[in-house]
Amino acid sequence: MSIRVGIFGYGNLGRGVELSIAQNPDMELVAVFTRRDPSKVSIVSKTAKVMSVDDVETMKDKIDVMILCGGSATDLPVQTPALAEHFCVVDSFDTHAKVPEHFANVDSAAKKGGKTAAISVGWDPGMFSLNRLYAEAVLPEGETYTFWGRGVSQGHSDAIRRIDGVADGKQYTIPVDEALSKVRAGKQPKFTTADKHIRECFVVAKEGADLARIENEIKTMPNYFADYNTIVHFISQEELDRDHKGIPHGGFVIRSGKTGENKENTHVIEYSLKLDSNPEFTASVIVAYARAVVRLYNEGNTGCKTVFDIPPAYLSTKSAEELRKELL
Amino acid sequence: MSIRVGIFGYGNLGRGVELSIAQNPDMELVAVFTRRDPSKVSIVSKTAKVMSVDDVETMKDKIDVMILCGGSATDLPVQTPALAEHFCVVDSFDTHAKVPEHFANVDSAAKKGGKTAAISVGWDPGMFSLNRLYAEAVLPEGETYTFWGRGVSQGHSDAIRRIDGVADGKQYTIPVDEALSKVRAGKQPKFTTADKHIRECFVVAKEGADLARIENEIKTMPNYFADYNTIVHFISQEELDRDHKGIPHGGFVIRSGKTGENKENTHVIEYSLKLDSNPEFTASVIVAYARAVVRLYNEGNTGCKTVFDIPPAYLSTKSAEELRKELL
Repeated sequence: MSIRVGIFGYGNLGRGVELSIAQNPDMELVAVFTRRDPSKVSIVSKTAKVMSVDDVETMKDKIDVMILCGGSATDLPVQTPALAEHFCVVDSFDTHAKVPEHFANVDSAAKKGGKTAAISVGWDPGMFSLNRLYAEAVLPEGETYTFWGRGVSQGHSDAIRRIDGVADGKQYTIPVDEALSKVRAGKQPKFTTADKHIRECFVVAKEGADLARIENEIKTMPNYFADYNTIVHFISQEELDRDHKGIPHGGFVIRSGKTGENKENTHVIEYSLKLDSNPEFTASVIVAYARAVVRLYNEGNTGCKTVFDIPPAYLSTKSAEELRKELL
Repeated sequence: MSIRVGIFGYGNLGRGVELSIAQNPDMELVAVFTRRDPSKVSIVSKTAKVMSVDDVETMKDKIDVMILCGGSATDLPVQTPALAEHFCVVDSFDTHAKVPEHFANVDSAAKKGGKTAAISVGWDPGMFSLNRLYAEAVLPEGETYTFWGRGVSQGHSDAIRRIDGVADGKQYTIPVDEALSKVRAGKQPKFTTADKHIRECFVVAKEGADLARIENEIKTMPNYFADYNTIVHFISQEELDRDHKGIPHGGFVIRSGKTGENKENTHVIEYSLKLDSNPEFTASVIVAYARAVVRLYNEGNTGCKTVFDIPPAYLSTKSAEELRKELL
């Protein structure tokens, strides 16, 4: 029997989850829940229903796992605990500093309802977190570095668009090649913020806007840009739409460490992602973990989990025997 | 209380395990077991005992986990099942084709004794296997490629040294750059054996030996070299000792896959290792999994496991709370 999946929230991520489910023959999309008028939301699937979020509890017995596709700022902190009591759930909560609080809330809701939850699933947090853990466990004496990009940062793009005189804009986070090279050479350098990443902005100004002022406001914006080497390009809306319509991302987790009687041997572990579509890849990770959550639930293993707690085999459609034979 | 570790077999790998244990403060080396005369084996540790393999069962209650450091051809198929009944064990069995048989033997011994075992731990099988599994689960429509090197192949070096007229030799497996580039570009090419790897041999000939014949014997050796682009260099023993004394290795696991309504988005996942010392890195992976095996045993989770079955968190000295806070 297929795993019956619900999608809660239908933006870029929700749509990515829908497409990913179609690539996994053991899964079936049952319903998409939206805050909009369901009659006005069109989805790719021909068989799934579009329903109002208000009716979600009526589907308690028809959905094995609910995938939450809202934002980390205001949606998930409320939605995941609320749904975790009634459904097995997976979310991609990515506010690193608030993970402990979110975990506690989801864990208590899931335990109350006897359900299984997985939070902070995606690539960072997610696959990158896994690689940080594995690398640190395997090379206890070393340093781990995470680089992001080249990719679009939604938060930084939004910050640019809020500036007076800006019509549209997109920001790319770019890892500094020289920093990557040093880390790959096993040197374990100390970096400032500016050493690791460049921020490149493509900005469409409104007619008659003061470009110099906009550029200055971007480059001096605290937290977002002030600490970085920031490059600003002014382009037309046509150029932005033509050349920057994708949502690529990616990055690198690199750990170098030493072994040997006199620490004479250096080892470098590198994990990297190069993604044409950030939301579609994140969705693909979430869907694999949705499978794992259902399996844990079926074994009676309830409460909140992260990628750290879940045996890798639970993500795969293959049996333990097949995995040992084909992938070990 | 420390995890009390035994090492069974003291070659390059056993010595690597000893050094790795010293990097893990929650672990303590109790004894090294050898087939040689224990009085003639000197180890790095000042506190651990050197004992005969014949006395291993006398240490049943003094060792929490035994790390087997013998070879996959003849040692481990016998030793791991024999010891798994009496000890929690970890081995690095790497004969891919015989994994199912080895797993069954170790599993039945471990279950008989109520112990926990992990087999085929290292980097391939091991970390590479994990990355094959994770990547395939996350991108179900795609292709996975494994490349090895640049690194020393012990088996191929041995094969060279068995040729008449050869005094010494070392073989490096080298991934072909062009093949790597194609895979990284998301092209999903089909490769022949020769497309993926080059074999480079450094050979010390005996005085008066026929170099042309040796080179030909190497290049035409079935299974080992005949299917590859093989390069042979004749060098002096001094050069070999000076320039080729290390045991470096490494490699790449790369998966590219497609997502999107029309498969329009390509994603590339790459995991790579660059290792100064193959046995010391393998040992480091094994030691992290030895910690996991003891934890599984303490929870009553017995029988044989592989890296696929073990939750990542079990490898780390950090608590679940610390992991979520620091690495997620």
